[in-house]
Amino acid sequence: MSQTQGAAPVLSTPSAARAAYRSGLVAPTSGHAPGHTQANLVILPQDWAWDMLLFGQRNPRPVPLLDVTDAGSPHTDLAPGADLRTDLPLYRVWRDGELVEEVPEITGLWREDLVAFLIGCSFSFEQALLDASVPVRNIEQGRNVAMYRTNRQCRPAGRLSGELVVSMRPVPGDLVPVAVQVTGRMPQVHGAPVHVGAPEGLGIADLDRPDFGESIQAQDGDVPVFWACGVTPQAALMASRPPFAITHAPGHMFVTDAPDSAYRLP
Amino acid sequence: MSQTQGAAPVLSTPSAARAAYRSGLVAPTSGHAPGHTQANLVILPQDWAWDMLLFGQRNPRPVPLLDVTDAGSPHTDLAPGADLRTDLPLYRVWRDGELVEEVPEITGLWREDLVAFLIGCSFSFEQALLDASVPVRNIEQGRNVAMYRTNRQCRPAGRLSGELVVSMRPVPGDLVPVAVQVTGRMPQVHGAPVHVGAPEGLGIADLDRPDFGESIQAQDGDVPVFWACGVTPQAALMASRPPFAITHAPGHMFVTDAPDSAYRLP
Repeated sequence: MSQTQGAAPVLSTPSAARAAYRSGLVAPTSGHAPGHTQANLVILPQDWAWDMLLFGQRNPRPVPLLDVTDAGSPHTDLAPGADLRTDLPLYRVWRDGELVEEVPEITGLWREDLVAFLIGCSFSFEQALLDASVPVRNIEQGRNVAMYRTNRQCRPAGRLSGELVVSMRPVPGDLVPVAVQVTGRMPQVHGAPVHVGAPEGLGIADLDRPDFGESIQAQDGDVPVFWACGVTPQAALMASRPPFAITHAPGHMFVTDAPDSAYRLP
Repeated sequence: MSQTQGAAPVLSTPSAARAAYRSGLVAPTSGHAPGHTQANLVILPQDWAWDMLLFGQRNPRPVPLLDVTDAGSPHTDLAPGADLRTDLPLYRVWRDGELVEEVPEITGLWREDLVAFLIGCSFSFEQALLDASVPVRNIEQGRNVAMYRTNRQCRPAGRLSGELVVSMRPVPGDLVPVAVQVTGRMPQVHGAPVHVGAPEGLGIADLDRPDFGESIQAQDGDVPVFWACGVTPQAALMASRPPFAITHAPGHMFVTDAPDSAYRLP
């Protein structure tokens, strides 16, 4: 594990953030390059890429594909000039579905048959919620969001299958309609909630015991609101055990040049 | 060519329409099973399916993928029980990029490596325009819509590349904003227009000479409005000359069970 946590630098632009990570800074990307879309990263050999692309096509809520690269190319239209092998702060390497290491760059692991998938991230809609005066409790509490496995299965694609994973944010009841409308206008970053109010409707037994992330404290009058979560494809991938995969490390996303507004419908 | 044009039957539901086509009726699908989404069909060998799926992911306006089948399966979640080999009224068979025949069913041509792509169709948004009291001149004039090649290139994907093809509908100037808003809420069936008002901005020299379809007469005060068109993937495909492909015949679409409302954002 490499964890050279640096002093908070000025990472006000996407290119400045990527340059800092490329130079070795390892730090979560949340709050950096504000106003710009951050993305989840999944890299797979071409042999598995069809399954992943089809999984995304069939499950756009949990797997909103923002860009998919040509095999062997570490470049994306979402950030011309960026290099996906070096420009994230921290990567995870998986073999046969097992996490084997975390590394700050993957140049030495790159292969000509690798395809990179950039997937929408809830950071984008959390900012939109804040812009609409909807409180985001996990940000207020300085915690990772609470995530849960559900009893809903994704549509399988080839060798990839798995349950829908959701994130939960407690929202004041009178602001639930605003939260639904705001995120409903962002279908490429998970879109409208998949469920409001009744955890048992998703097969979630205990909100205080999330499967991923941290428990979030609700305020009086808050209602639990559930969105499809970008952990879904990672969970499906790890259950399906491809021989080789690379992902971003949680919270250490790819910072794109795309303004958040690019993914907000009018 | 098979053209057993039947007397207009009652095809009020998607399953009745598909059963009629399965039984041999060859007729355009426009106006049948009203309120239900119709789809363009492209069938390709698995070897070319990655290129097509990626082309759709990268060019969602002209190539909005509604469903993609498993290799060898003629079934789709958009119409459980339907058979894509028999349930369209008329198919086109292509070899090395050349149209070789039109046939009313493709059972004998089916192979275990074929993947079917169902692609959103402008019929869906024309109904939405009518619902919003926006006149649709091509329907008024009983003509196929006018379509034009443009000077805009699609993002290539593997062996697939080509220019954006657009359809044009003349819209009264005061209703252009309504037309933009209504179709903008339907991103899975081509979405908002790509251009309004200035054909030369798309490299179109003469509106009276469309590259596909028929010339549409504008009324006084109409403005030409251009939408990304589902002919785009077919044009790219034929230019790229895959050894084998099957598509629907123009106007002879796949009638799905999906209500049009499924593709309208609130």
